[in-house]
Amino acid sequence: MTIPNTIEWVGELDGYARLIDQTLLPLELRFLDVHDVETMWEAIKVLRVRGAPAIGIAAAMGMVLAVRNVNTEDFETFRAAVERAAQYLNTARPTAVNLFWATRRMQQLVESLRELPVSQIKQRMLEEAITILEEDAAMCRAIGEHGAQLIRDGDSWLTHCNAGALATARWGTATAAFYVAREQGKRIHVYADETRPLLQGARLTAWELQQAGVPVTLITDNMAATVMAQGRVQGVIVGADRVTANGDFANKIGTLGVAILAKEFGIPFYVAVPSSSIDLSMPSGEHIPIEERKPEEVTEGFGRRTAPLGVNVYNPAFDVTPHRYVTAFITERGLVCPPFDVNLRRMFGA
Amino acid sequence: MTIPNTIEWVGELDGYARLIDQTLLPLELRFLDVHDVETMWEAIKVLRVRGAPAIGIAAAMGMVLAVRNVNTEDFETFRAAVERAAQYLNTARPTAVNLFWATRRMQQLVESLRELPVSQIKQRMLEEAITILEEDAAMCRAIGEHGAQLIRDGDSWLTHCNAGALATARWGTATAAFYVAREQGKRIHVYADETRPLLQGARLTAWELQQAGVPVTLITDNMAATVMAQGRVQGVIVGADRVTANGDFANKIGTLGVAILAKEFGIPFYVAVPSSSIDLSMPSGEHIPIEERKPEEVTEGFGRRTAPLGVNVYNPAFDVTPHRYVTAFITERGLVCPPFDVNLRRMFGA
Repeated sequence: MTIPNTIEWVGELDGYARLIDQTLLPLELRFLDVHDVETMWEAIKVLRVRGAPAIGIAAAMGMVLAVRNVNTEDFETFRAAVERAAQYLNTARPTAVNLFWATRRMQQLVESLRELPVSQIKQRMLEEAITILEEDAAMCRAIGEHGAQLIRDGDSWLTHCNAGALATARWGTATAAFYVAREQGKRIHVYADETRPLLQGARLTAWELQQAGVPVTLITDNMAATVMAQGRVQGVIVGADRVTANGDFANKIGTLGVAILAKEFGIPFYVAVPSSSIDLSMPSGEHIPIEERKPEEVTEGFGRRTAPLGVNVYNPAFDVTPHRYVTAFITERGLVCPPFDVNLRRMFGA
Repeated sequence: MTIPNTIEWVGELDGYARLIDQTLLPLELRFLDVHDVETMWEAIKVLRVRGAPAIGIAAAMGMVLAVRNVNTEDFETFRAAVERAAQYLNTARPTAVNLFWATRRMQQLVESLRELPVSQIKQRMLEEAITILEEDAAMCRAIGEHGAQLIRDGDSWLTHCNAGALATARWGTATAAFYVAREQGKRIHVYADETRPLLQGARLTAWELQQAGVPVTLITDNMAATVMAQGRVQGVIVGADRVTANGDFANKIGTLGVAILAKEFGIPFYVAVPSSSIDLSMPSGEHIPIEERKPEEVTEGFGRRTAPLGVNVYNPAFDVTPHRYVTAFITERGLVCPPFDVNLRRMFGA
């Protein structure tokens, strides 16, 4: 069994983007063929495609879709259309850093090609979007190769949220090690925390591991302590939204609790992260701003209201895990072990 | 504001039991007036009334409803009707220990009164049912008095699941300390874990604290680590289903994780428990059998499916917390501090 591609480009410049409509998961696998930028904008907006790397790829392809039919040979006219496309796509998810990164990268490419005919620039834009996808897949694959070395035949590992193939071009970050270990013929099993409030573990991680033929057991977040206490878990891998210079990191709410439990039970705790998420300009985790989200995610998460009207809710989207709970970071360049302040700078510093 | 009574008897022997229909919480407060044993059986069966002590009271009142209209003066005939009522009620929730305990207590009462006229025995049965209720309320109140001493003005405490007024005659066990502290004029605030998979914290604890005018903030289970890390929690109180001789205890799944987090953050962790739940015949927690419940509680908790079809699920209903994480037990006779093997036996041994 294999996981379908999260997002890909079908055909040539007159082709289209094809992506898994993740709003229908885990009950239905349906592909959305995206022929115009408006459809891509909506797909990003309503989370048909989600996960920072996948959003970047979608935005780059959206740029292609936006300008490929602009009928001009005048660079300034074309550049203005590229500019409008970027501004438009950036409004789809105003907090998604990779969205801005991808549209800017496409704009810079266009700028650098101003001497070329517009038709060739369009072609190079498509190649760039595909490059972004391939770079991401290669990076995730490298993370998976490094991570798989940590997993032994017969192991059960635990993961939280979805730092999975569905969030990237392929492989995922936290899940990549599982897929590569499986390819290597290791018999592995994964516990997936359901990850309240939005249930990415239940809806996405359990689904993609199942698709890939990796045995997976779904648990509620508060069962992690028990499966660890029972000796069922040999390691933990999670993703990260941002890693600071001292090794503190932000990730989906609930990660901190898993990290503390892993330490208590002597289970190694790894953070799979591309180098692009390592922010050496931020000294430590206390500087990371934590987004609070709307209470309805907690009170009406399952299709009907499950808490009293008017109840006060605290709903932080992320938590910050201090570096002392991290065994090592798994990056595309290899493992980073403590002391993190020294070793992160050595490997990723300017 | 006050919490309505979970269950009470209205009127004399020809009266009825009135209980909160907890299946409608937290969105609607509706009382069910129970005039016959069949209605009480159904109420226990479908969890309109739940929580070990409340089920015991409901069963005792159900016994009264079952036999009050038995038209005989012959003790043997009456005793046979009492026996049938007990057998019938015991089938409502075959795993509820307090159900059996209450029907047996009523049967033993009847046996002890065999010299009295049947009409007087019926009257004494009603008095016994009310005594069971009052004993439970008094016990919970005593737990609350002892627990409230631990809470300071301005504190925020965290609780898990619903060891609340709704599970008992009044006050609850874990929540009793909050209600008494509030009566004492202390400004307190409570974080309620939602408690997946069945959300007793969101549906019941948040509701009853809100009714009682105790400021409450609902969080998902995996946010407990973050509120503790942020210094928002000064103490934790949970209930227990069973405490063993060395102080290990079983409680709702997720309790173990909260206990470990509390220890990591230096937050005192208390277990509120009536002496009837302390089982000195069991030496330690590894002997406690853990009930596994059906996967649908995790995969389709609240109205719609949130996990892929066919996914494997592990759904233990309880976990066992080793005694080393417990600061003290709060019982109706007072606090029990470590060493628990010595002090539990000293206070509750034969």
